[in-house]
Amino acid sequence: MQPDTLAAEVASLISDEPDLIANFANVSALRFHSLNVEKGNCINWLGFYRVHERHNDVLVLGPFQGHSACIRIPFGQGVCGTAALNRKTVVVPNVEEFPGHISCDSNSKSEIVLPVFDEHDKLIAVLDIDASVVGCFGEKDAERLERVVAAFRRKTPNSPRKREVKHAAVHTSEK
Amino acid sequence: MQPDTLAAEVASLISDEPDLIANFANVSALRFHSLNVEKGNCINWLGFYRVHERHNDVLVLGPFQGHSACIRIPFGQGVCGTAALNRKTVVVPNVEEFPGHISCDSNSKSEIVLPVFDEHDKLIAVLDIDASVVGCFGEKDAERLERVVAAFRRKTPNSPRKREVKHAAVHTSEK
Repeated sequence: MQPDTLAAEVASLISDEPDLIANFANVSALRFHSLNVEKGNCINWLGFYRVHERHNDVLVLGPFQGHSACIRIPFGQGVCGTAALNRKTVVVPNVEEFPGHISCDSNSKSEIVLPVFDEHDKLIAVLDIDASVVGCFGEKDAERLERVVAAFRRKTPNSPRKREVKHAAVHTSEK
Repeated sequence: MQPDTLAAEVASLISDEPDLIANFANVSALRFHSLNVEKGNCINWLGFYRVHERHNDVLVLGPFQGHSACIRIPFGQGVCGTAALNRKTVVVPNVEEFPGHISCDSNSKSEIVLPVFDEHDKLIAVLDIDASVVGCFGEKDAERLERVVAAFRRKTPNSPRKREVKHAAVHTSEK
């Protein structure tokens, strides 16, 4: 396996922060912008659906980049629900040909959804990526993105109090 | 007060959904894109910092639109921390002139931060908006955006189970 800069970058971004929402938000931003550079700006939505805290057969919208989206998706429905139910990546070259596809945005033409596991192999979310062109994602993307979401499996939260404003440069200016 | 379409749109978007993270995510998307239309694409970051669940003097990054951001901000630090500490909107025409400004992105030149309260008047988050030009926000923006975040004060969560895939159009296609 070749070294994967993207996977390393994501692992570094979240390794020091225990808050999952913050990590989902920052990883969405990082991947949305870098994947758009790679894919010629055809990524129109990238984000996480979280497994509901109490009802573990329902996905609930999490942090994302893109336009407003569907809020809840039962396991087994649409591409996200199918990936969650089967705990497997789903690559959809043409969403029109996916039975039961949930259409949040008519601009989305192809899609990839990856299950996200924690260190105990528990499904915690899916990473959903939509593109405005047919056939945007293939098996190579699946392999690379699986290495990216694997960062959530390996991370070990530390105390959050030590890391306040870690990523910020604070400067004081005179008025 | 004139009727405010934006505030009504946000209230409608979140009124039927109890999950705060999903609502923060969808409101970020809605406001980011519509505010960029209004402001000539100068909004480079829009999102929420949540009051930490256990340490109520720290803000933690929530859903947002834009590039990866600072994760934790103590109350009293920077524009977000100042708005949280004083429970008041802060309009900053030029971030370089704000003492202790936290610079997550050097492209941000002006900023507005609004406190977000729940129905019990408890501070739950701040809405942070950055622009790539100086002087993007004024008192009129503050007034309008305060009506937008007021939707979080008024909402009364209902049972989530009835609303699965509410915003989705599900269609079945033949292979």
